Amino acid sequence: MTQEVHIFDRALALEHSDTQSGLFAGAASQDYWNMVGPFGGTTAALALRAVLQHPDLLGTPIALTVNYASAIGPGPLEVLAIPVRTNRSTQHWRMEVRQSGEDGRMQVNTTATAVTAARRETWSGHDLPMPQVPPPAQVERFDMGPKGVAWFNKYEMRPVRGAIPASWDGAEAPSESMLWLRDAQPRALDFCSLAAMSDLFYPRVWLRRAKPVPAGTVSITTYFHADAAQLQEAGTGYLLGRAQGQQFFNGFFDQAAQLWSEAGRLLATSNQIVYFKE
Amino acid sequence: MTQEVHIFDRALALEHSDTQSGLFAGAASQDYWNMVGPFGGTTAALALRAVLQHPDLLGTPIALTVNYASAIGPGPLEVLAIPVRTNRSTQHWRMEVRQSGEDGRMQVNTTATAVTAARRETWSGHDLPMPQVPPPAQVERFDMGPKGVAWFNKYEMRPVRGAIPASWDGAEAPSESMLWLRDAQPRALDFCSLAAMSDLFYPRVWLRRAKPVPAGTVSITTYFHADAAQLQEAGTGYLLGRAQGQQFFNGFFDQAAQLWSEAGRLLATSNQIVYFKE
Repeated sequence: MTQEVHIFDRALALEHSDTQSGLFAGAASQDYWNMVGPFGGTTAALALRAVLQHPDLLGTPIALTVNYASAIGPGPLEVLAIPVRTNRSTQHWRMEVRQSGEDGRMQVNTTATAVTAARRETWSGHDLPMPQVPPPAQVERFDMGPKGVAWFNKYEMRPVRGAIPASWDGAEAPSESMLWLRDAQPRALDFCSLAAMSDLFYPRVWLRRAKPVPAGTVSITTYFHADAAQLQEAGTGYLLGRAQGQQFFNGFFDQAAQLWSEAGRLLATSNQIVYFKE
Repeated sequence: MTQEVHIFDRALALEHSDTQSGLFAGAASQDYWNMVGPFGGTTAALALRAVLQHPDLLGTPIALTVNYASAIGPGPLEVLAIPVRTNRSTQHWRMEVRQSGEDGRMQVNTTATAVTAARRETWSGHDLPMPQVPPPAQVERFDMGPKGVAWFNKYEMRPVRGAIPASWDGAEAPSESMLWLRDAQPRALDFCSLAAMSDLFYPRVWLRRAKPVPAGTVSITTYFHADAAQLQEAGTGYLLGRAQGQQFFNGFFDQAAQLWSEAGRLLATSNQIVYFKE
């Protein structure tokens, strides 16, 4: 019996084309296509995947910042991952996603940095308990229907509150959303899917203003609060995702997000700054 | 009458040594010295200053991520700032702070990225109002006294709550701090001081555990929600800073922070991930 490769792993497939230079070869995923390029979450996951596949990797991901400099088009791409500095227990990475431009020259579409570390066991605690919400089975699944962009139905989303406005009536409202989420096709949680899921929330400005203005993530930073054991515990279960806008000002707003395991463990905290129009 | 250069501007003094390569020459500031290197906030500000001094700069800062790969030592340093991609209204930067290592070769001590943008006027709003706190004049100034590290008294800090624990008794407590803050020697707010002030909070784990364990910022990301007009409005006034830990897990915790102007405008939101021991 052969095990089928999960659609998300196909999207992240990278071949280490040149170990010396840290270059990996891959392709933009049509399965996770958004409106003008792949879902930004997969791009973040791709940059992280290159780090995790690098033979010189130390430890597990602690921090990931991804800057979307330009839309990624269909077809081949390359990912650069360089361990800029390796300390005793931490490692600092610089990444780029590149594609061939119209003139045939490689262009940088995404810049990124990451920190990985060999964690040691310490005191642990939290200051942000999971909000009290109904369990996933009691929350209806959101179905965007046939008009949905390709990546959307790759995830199962059960909005507890703050779903995409049913009517674009321009009524101002709080920008907080909470939803249960997981891969639509079951897949055990790992750092790459956690990175992608951190970018799962639709633009806060749509909710805040009940107006679907053009918007796109410019930069996202995700911190990981998990080791192999915590990921294994989460498995193929649901995560509770929460996202809220903080400040909307002259073309950009920020979004703070958290992802808890179904058991209530805060696995990732993520922030992004998003471009919007009007 | 000559105007004296502010101590913070002396700390950030950079000479554009090579326009072509984006290299700037500076020095680690003794005035803002922390325990094993300069205050991380000045390092973040230094990386940003290089971008702002670069002749190819487009717009004003939107996002800044700084990764502290290794402690910066005393003496000369160089800052690299490269505009990796320039779009119509946004620009993506990659930066490094480097110093000569023991073997005489330049080493990367800090990696960073930034996004700058030409903002356009749009609808603006917020979802994170300034907490209700007593005005600065009614809050006592915190004085760490002669044992304080050099950078500390460069800021005036008036803790509203969550001051450094008076006794290290190991009693667990919420990790939230709020304080009024500004440059001790008056200086009009700009993007560099806003970047530095975003890193002003002492380690959340000290407050959470009432235990002064070794800790240091590994990576910080700051989003700017201001234009020249908002900075001018803030001027030399106080900012209200709020910081809270979210998750503490096996050697690292994250901190979410906000900085409001005295008039109640959210000027910056900042997140960091911090190493801690035990």
